[in-house]
Amino acid sequence: MVAELIAVGTELLLGNVANTDAQIISQGLSALGITVLHHTVVGDNPQRLAEALETARNRADIIITTGGLGPTYDDLTKQTICKTFHRELELHEDILEDLKTWFQTKMGKKMPENNIQQAMLPVDCTIFDNPVGTAPGCAFVEDGVHVLMLPGPPFECRYMFEHRAAPYLEKLTDGVIVSHEIKVFGMGESAVEEALHEPMTTLTNPTLAPYAKTNECMVRATARAESREKAEELLTPLVREVCETLGDVVYGVDVGSLEEVVSGLLAERGLTLAAAESCTGGLLSKRMTDLPGASKVFRGGVVSYVNDVKANVLGVPREVLEQYGAVSGETARAMAEGCRRVCGSDLAVSLTGVAGPERDDWGNEVGTVYAALAGPEETICKKLTCGRGRGRDRVRTAAASNALDLIRRFLLKLPL
Amino acid sequence: MVAELIAVGTELLLGNVANTDAQIISQGLSALGITVLHHTVVGDNPQRLAEALETARNRADIIITTGGLGPTYDDLTKQTICKTFHRELELHEDILEDLKTWFQTKMGKKMPENNIQQAMLPVDCTIFDNPVGTAPGCAFVEDGVHVLMLPGPPFECRYMFEHRAAPYLEKLTDGVIVSHEIKVFGMGESAVEEALHEPMTTLTNPTLAPYAKTNECMVRATARAESREKAEELLTPLVREVCETLGDVVYGVDVGSLEEVVSGLLAERGLTLAAAESCTGGLLSKRMTDLPGASKVFRGGVVSYVNDVKANVLGVPREVLEQYGAVSGETARAMAEGCRRVCGSDLAVSLTGVAGPERDDWGNEVGTVYAALAGPEETICKKLTCGRGRGRDRVRTAAASNALDLIRRFLLKLPL
Repeated sequence: MVAELIAVGTELLLGNVANTDAQIISQGLSALGITVLHHTVVGDNPQRLAEALETARNRADIIITTGGLGPTYDDLTKQTICKTFHRELELHEDILEDLKTWFQTKMGKKMPENNIQQAMLPVDCTIFDNPVGTAPGCAFVEDGVHVLMLPGPPFECRYMFEHRAAPYLEKLTDGVIVSHEIKVFGMGESAVEEALHEPMTTLTNPTLAPYAKTNECMVRATARAESREKAEELLTPLVREVCETLGDVVYGVDVGSLEEVVSGLLAERGLTLAAAESCTGGLLSKRMTDLPGASKVFRGGVVSYVNDVKANVLGVPREVLEQYGAVSGETARAMAEGCRRVCGSDLAVSLTGVAGPERDDWGNEVGTVYAALAGPEETICKKLTCGRGRGRDRVRTAAASNALDLIRRFLLKLPL
Repeated sequence: MVAELIAVGTELLLGNVANTDAQIISQGLSALGITVLHHTVVGDNPQRLAEALETARNRADIIITTGGLGPTYDDLTKQTICKTFHRELELHEDILEDLKTWFQTKMGKKMPENNIQQAMLPVDCTIFDNPVGTAPGCAFVEDGVHVLMLPGPPFECRYMFEHRAAPYLEKLTDGVIVSHEIKVFGMGESAVEEALHEPMTTLTNPTLAPYAKTNECMVRATARAESREKAEELLTPLVREVCETLGDVVYGVDVGSLEEVVSGLLAERGLTLAAAESCTGGLLSKRMTDLPGASKVFRGGVVSYVNDVKANVLGVPREVLEQYGAVSGETARAMAEGCRRVCGSDLAVSLTGVAGPERDDWGNEVGTVYAALAGPEETICKKLTCGRGRGRDRVRTAAASNALDLIRRFLLKLPL
């Protein structure tokens, strides 16, 4: 089955926001085994939306629109779709009541008259009720084409796709689709593709597809079968094969981010972490504390951006800073050890390096970073080259990710 | 003039990445006064790309493609465009030499054979050389339609649009287009729209348009005139009017981020800053150090995620933590004062609050955050409500932005 996404909103054409709805829905469709061949964006303009719908109905089995379901005069998606597909809109009294209640309880005010429009839905449709916003979505079938309408705000769109559209679409596909995600750090997408070239290009069910992410990549194995058990039977040997081929760069299957995996490993062992950051300036700590409940494993840390803070707060000896410089293995080690001491953690990680845009006064190139990890028995240190000349942001992100991977490898006793 | 953007890449249709190139280019086109009516995304498929090009040439004056300029077999943009517009590709020996040099110096290896493709460009085109990657872009005119090709990786696309495509397009428009950006923090987009409803809906030249950003918003004033001077004459009174209407929520005109403005204010005054962070876990420090040369004004800080670190590293009295709790004005003040002392900075800012997803043990709601700022003479403190129930990430981002705005207001002696 082929799907086409049509986003409606002048704010997208002005570059006010990126079309992240298309990304979220495309990921979900891919996991359902539904092929997406086109994304289109049009403004809040009924004529151009109608043209896009006409084009889409001639080449897709499923059309999913995002946006234009709001209460204002320029929200025209439902009206235009109904006109194009010759359907009437009808008022749903129960939705209107829900809307009124929503305004009273969540916003503490009376529903504006305009919002009545949101209780108007196409005749004979499947209603997608929206617990995270005011605009319900809906779906209908016309001439074998499924038309789904979802709200535009990304938070609502994600919720409505996952909890309303995906279950609706799942019923349209034969059997079940199951997929597993193999997460990789420390091996580029092209190297992964090369290593898995054979199964990626020849398999049809299950399939194997690579996804590049910032600083890491992911391989998704997907199988279609008449039951979940049968699908898992197809997937188990493939996932095992991928993990064996790629080796210890695989940091998990169906896991969250690298920081989530590291937090889990620390929690399993009852260990706490602290971080001393120079070039990353707080990014690593920020990532560790992105996770709810982070305080169980993460105690905090020191952003020692200037040498005085390295010396005074972390106790890095002035001689070390003078003899080896701030960007050195010696300083990284002293930062990690000092951080472990002042934060009272079991482990402490440190990062010091050149984020750029210019090399430092000691002649270290942009991207040169030292990561150290201090534990009760030893301190390990690794010299890294981060970011490959792609700018300050990439250097810092790569440095933080490498520090997380260093902790993972240390805890799992893998080669550093 | 009307432009249409066509992004080429199966990774977009799989949801692997969002089409941020379209956002960047749309913003730039909007600033040039060029109207965008469609964004289209197709995969690495010559037939569907050809169809998209045929459609676009019939409804747009300018077609900009992104992606598909790489060296691999599925990078087909140039070939497909040339076929559609009946042009030949020719080898450019000088580009080939540049490519070989790039590989030798930046990658330390010989150029792979495949990359020869990147030195092939349409006959009679304007070449956009690419100093930030391997794929040059180009532009040509056919039947009055301008076709521009830019590389897909966002970092390269942004650079190539700003430095190559925008100057090319500027020459196509009548006269000059000048715009100014009025940056706002602390007033929502809808309130801004309400305050500026009259000029936003009635003006035609200059125009005024609002843009929502995470936690803040921006108003862009744009004028078209025969010369820069005439355009500025149209803009000056309008920008002044907007600033007067909105008041001190305007943090700058044509400035960078809030953190850049704060860094500038600190630098002008010769002051240094440090940050003590609890709920934001390093985000504020990370944002201050996103900027190159941050060490001139930012010394570092302490991520005091657990109470022990607040007490032991920052010297927050245990009695304060026990009596008022970690999320309190008293703790925020003690954190800021302690941070100023240990980091040896002129000013220190602190944040402590509930990022969620659950309220804390003391019954503080998610989004309750205290920000304090310690200086040589006094410590000020402000209780904030951040994120409006939109999740942990929003609470933390809003908290960090509010702390930056607190510093701005303190330095400019504005009401807190």
